[in-house]
Amino acid sequence: MEVDAHGLEVLDQPECLRLLASVPVGRIAFTDRALPAIQPVNFALDGSDVIVRTGPGSKLGLAVQRAVVAFEADDFDPASHEGWSVTLLGEARAVTDPAELERLSRLSIPSWAPGPRDRYIRISGRYVSGRRINAVAV
Amino acid sequence: MEVDAHGLEVLDQPECLRLLASVPVGRIAFTDRALPAIQPVNFALDGSDVIVRTGPGSKLGLAVQRAVVAFEADDFDPASHEGWSVTLLGEARAVTDPAELERLSRLSIPSWAPGPRDRYIRISGRYVSGRRINAVAV
Repeated sequence: MEVDAHGLEVLDQPECLRLLASVPVGRIAFTDRALPAIQPVNFALDGSDVIVRTGPGSKLGLAVQRAVVAFEADDFDPASHEGWSVTLLGEARAVTDPAELERLSRLSIPSWAPGPRDRYIRISGRYVSGRRINAVAV
Repeated sequence: MEVDAHGLEVLDQPECLRLLASVPVGRIAFTDRALPAIQPVNFALDGSDVIVRTGPGSKLGLAVQRAVVAFEADDFDPASHEGWSVTLLGEARAVTDPAELERLSRLSIPSWAPGPRDRYIRISGRYVSGRRINAVAV
């Protein structure tokens, strides 16, 4: 088991992707008018890329075009204090190719927020990292 | 009930603080070497400020000194699709005053990650905003 400088277990890429696929909500950190912003989003995986569904004219959609963003998902158990966190760091781009849009619409990414959600943002999964807090190891 | 342009219920400051106090983990979005970063943290409220506990020499502690950060916490129910998200946007500063450190140590902020956690970061709660997804309203 690889452990980082802070004593947290380092997760490999397959484990990061498996964990990401297990939760329906993640968070995007981006820059909005020169200030940091963070927003929860529904998402799905397409290979190792994260696909986020958003609405037309959303602050998120406008802010992240061709920007480098951080995407994070996690799951912690308040009782055992065990849990994990996975972060992607990559360029976000709006999906505009009709064939790709058609294919992504079949991923059936849930959308919990109201309103139309017919825009898709792809975040490259090239740089993914993850950590696990294991109460036994602490 | 106030609703934003996307149909989400807008939460007032007292409700935002009440919800923040109900969860043990939030996430800080900050800039790390000119790139966006996001990290889950244990936290507690001190009035309307968020207090984060971290270790000596942590990447987070070094990166957020006197920086504007976004802090977010949320709770979503995968079954009902109901949930909320609260975000603080404010300057983060390391707490160095001995009397303040002594007082904050009595907040008993949990620390799930291993290693010493004797540094405290205060994030101003002046700018707090929150939204609720209410499945009934959708």
